[in-house]
Amino acid sequence: MFRAAALTPFHPKLSPLSSSAERVRYAETDQMGIVYYANYLVWFELGRVELLRSLGLAYSQMEKDHKLILPVIESNCRYRHPARYDDEILIETRPALVRESVLKFAYQILRAGHDGEEPKLLAEGETIHVVCDENLKRMPLPAQYSTALKKLMRS
Amino acid sequence: MFRAAALTPFHPKLSPLSSSAERVRYAETDQMGIVYYANYLVWFELGRVELLRSLGLAYSQMEKDHKLILPVIESNCRYRHPARYDDEILIETRPALVRESVLKFAYQILRAGHDGEEPKLLAEGETIHVVCDENLKRMPLPAQYSTALKKLMRS
Amino acid sequence: MFRAAALTPFHPKLSPLSSSAERVRYAETDQMGIVYYANYLVWFELGRVELLRSLGLAYSQMEKDHKLILPVIESNCRYRHPARYDDEILIETRPALVRESVLKFAYQILRAGHDGEEPKLLAEGETIHVVCDENLKRMPLPAQYSTALKKLMRS
Amino acid sequence: MFRAAALTPFHPKLSPLSSSAERVRYAETDQMGIVYYANYLVWFELGRVELLRSLGLAYSQMEKDHKLILPVIESNCRYRHPARYDDEILIETRPALVRESVLKFAYQILRAGHDGEEPKLLAEGETIHVVCDENLKRMPLPAQYSTALKKLMRS
Repeated sequence: MFRAAALTPFHPKLSPLSSSAERVRYAETDQMGIVYYANYLVWFELGRVELLRSLGLAYSQMEKDHKLILPVIESNCRYRHPARYDDEILIETRPALVRESVLKFAYQILRAGHDGEEPKLLAEGETIHVVCDENLKRMPLPAQYSTALKKLMRS
Repeated sequence: MFRAAALTPFHPKLSPLSSSAERVRYAETDQMGIVYYANYLVWFELGRVELLRSLGLAYSQMEKDHKLILPVIESNCRYRHPARYDDEILIETRPALVRESVLKFAYQILRAGHDGEEPKLLAEGETIHVVCDENLKRMPLPAQYSTALKKLMRS
Repeated sequence: MFRAAALTPFHPKLSPLSSSAERVRYAETDQMGIVYYANYLVWFELGRVELLRSLGLAYSQMEKDHKLILPVIESNCRYRHPARYDDEILIETRPALVRESVLKFAYQILRAGHDGEEPKLLAEGETIHVVCDENLKRMPLPAQYSTALKKLMRS
Repeated sequence: MFRAAALTPFHPKLSPLSSSAERVRYAETDQMGIVYYANYLVWFELGRVELLRSLGLAYSQMEKDHKLILPVIESNCRYRHPARYDDEILIETRPALVRESVLKFAYQILRAGHDGEEPKLLAEGETIHVVCDENLKRMPLPAQYSTALKKLMRS
């Protein structure tokens, strides 16, 4: 997973973004034989962590150095096609909004195509975060993060 | 959990609904010291299962007898206040839309009040489901279910 | 869940113990149609929390008041019969060893019997914990806890 | 994750094995700030899937083509040092026993070393599986699997 972060073109009208690859775990399926719906939010988290890492901003360092956490205040997901066990999925993430202490990320979950096939869109969604200190008090996003994210949005 | 299903008044303007009680599990927390955001969707699932059970409609029976499953096509959640380990939470669920093969449920997650305190709203959200057979083909909701759910919406 | 803690006879040769009841969640199943094997360890955790609570020792208070945590240093589980979605399960827990800074708990997971049926043993296991402060340094278990646990073992 | 499978030397006295790499997910931590203990069993599962894949035996194909599943009948884990958020972990897996319809795998979870550091052993454990058809009836392991696994054990 952690070797796949890269800035790749996403969609003509969208910003470049970070893309990471995962394989669906058995633990992520349920008895319908498809991935349990809450697990897409776990994948969104992997996507935004990779996005930050691709900008040189490790989330683990953010927590340690800046005592800064990014709790989610809103999430949503539209499920288009079910992901299944052992599928290779791509998580594409881009910043969708950067305010003083509010961040929004947009995600697409795709199944990797084989033999020249196009990747298939499985789900898409957004999460909104508020920048907080460790006591969950709102604080401004440090400049190095907001600059990097805004630059990515314009690119 | 399975002893708490009951029809209780929810909010003056809303339909009656099913309420179930849970205690936050250690496994549900993350290193922020609060409940990981994807777990609210697991609680939503517990809520809609209890809602169906309170109508005499066990989801496990639906799957077995009618070969009917309810995959989620959309979910969203607004997180107001963090739930924490060992909190007693209430999951309040009501049907918000009943169409031939589409169902929408609305949820509120509350922290139980103690010593006469009011319960505190922690999160709220919705899930939209499409009624499917076991091959994920859309099918109409059997009449007994739609009748019971619609009756509950009007009450 | 949190209303079911009670001291009940477990087995003629074993100590009394704490028993708590749960219903299997959809999220806990996998595509085999049975509960994913790691989730039994989550149930073990619910069992030991209830055991402590039945002694008047809330684990959440232990963490807050004594800055004391109980990381697991060993776990094992024998899976006898699969638990399935919506099963009513019983988690029976007893202290199996109480040393200055080491605790061992033993668990049985049973499916509740209906109509006079005997509960069926689904799985059993043990976890070993070391008593630590919040920096993961070993410390002795406060006397009130070890006294209560030892008394339970002898009873 | 799925790009890292390779046969690498494990330990002088042990068989060669499969090694896969993962990064610890935020969802896998708990409020102790370390990985929740049940998640090591999820990693064990990733390890054995990679081991089978490294032999050309995808578990997803086993389920589809042979209607064969491998439910766990026993698991155990010794936790040496806690894994933490964002750690790069290595999952090393080897077959430890291959009988007609019983398989045992052994695992080591290591934290990857940086700058020439040795990897650090975080946990180790075993799982025992019985080979079953989709109705959970015991069946013999198809020859292609047992031959490949036994060959790996001898190598």
